[in-house]
Amino acid sequence: MNTKKELRVNAIKNGTVIDHIPAKDLFKVIKILGLEKFENTMTLGNNLESKTQGHKGIIKISEMFFKDDDIDRIALAAPNAKLNIIKDYTVVEKRLVNVPDKVIGIAKCVNPKCITNFEDDIKTKFTVINKEDIALKCHYCEKITNKENLRLQ
Amino acid sequence: MNTKKELRVNAIKNGTVIDHIPAKDLFKVIKILGLEKFENTMTLGNNLESKTQGHKGIIKISEMFFKDDDIDRIALAAPNAKLNIIKDYTVVEKRLVNVPDKVIGIAKCVNPKCITNFEDDIKTKFTVINKEDIALKCHYCEKITNKENLRLQ
Repeated sequence: MNTKKELRVNAIKNGTVIDHIPAKDLFKVIKILGLEKFENTMTLGNNLESKTQGHKGIIKISEMFFKDDDIDRIALAAPNAKLNIIKDYTVVEKRLVNVPDKVIGIAKCVNPKCITNFEDDIKTKFTVINKEDIALKCHYCEKITNKENLRLQ
Repeated sequence: MNTKKELRVNAIKNGTVIDHIPAKDLFKVIKILGLEKFENTMTLGNNLESKTQGHKGIIKISEMFFKDDDIDRIALAAPNAKLNIIKDYTVVEKRLVNVPDKVIGIAKCVNPKCITNFEDDIKTKFTVINKEDIALKCHYCEKITNKENLRLQ
């Protein structure tokens, strides 16, 4: 039995491809976008060889076109991701991710004593003070959460 | 720009394909197997059309061959999953999932008052009392957790 045929994934006719996601952060991006709940056909690849970044992840979702705000939320995990918007099997637009100025309700504050870590109804709220390496200053306790210790809510 | 070429996913040379996962349970299976931490090349598909079950998920992992015990753990989420073990692009073995007799430390007990839900160092422990529809009887509080209210630890 040869599996070459069954393992081939069809091209997307219409949808979005998110490429150049750091391999270790693919599942963070999936969580930020809420892909677990989507009913769209999707293909996810991880630990794929990349010419530019060692190993990468990729997400391909049919019939899904994200709003700018939704895409910019993934900047926390994948600031260098590149998006291809596909219509009728053709890339009609390319987009980069913009790191937003404020981040509300995605990341947890690194400070275990921060009010957001023990009051469930208070959403986290950060000002992005370093867009290159990702550093978030908490609105409530002013402690800095960076990419290395970033955990999702 | 035509994307047909770049969207094609290569066949697995050596590894495991887990097919016929219910679409709504793909991410549960990913969590049970701990795929978020794997460094193997992998492709995941979800909400794919299936001849037998509406919509399905599929997992393809290179250079990974699971132990029987690990595979049987996914039975809680995907009792009808089918595995193909692939060597040199050829399916050398097919496997079904066996629902285990006991489940330790994967699922949460549905009973909010169960000791396993407020003592972090006590692992959950269940006897599987219905293998067809999945029903788990808690070792500690004897309440029944079934597939519909199953949440992972």
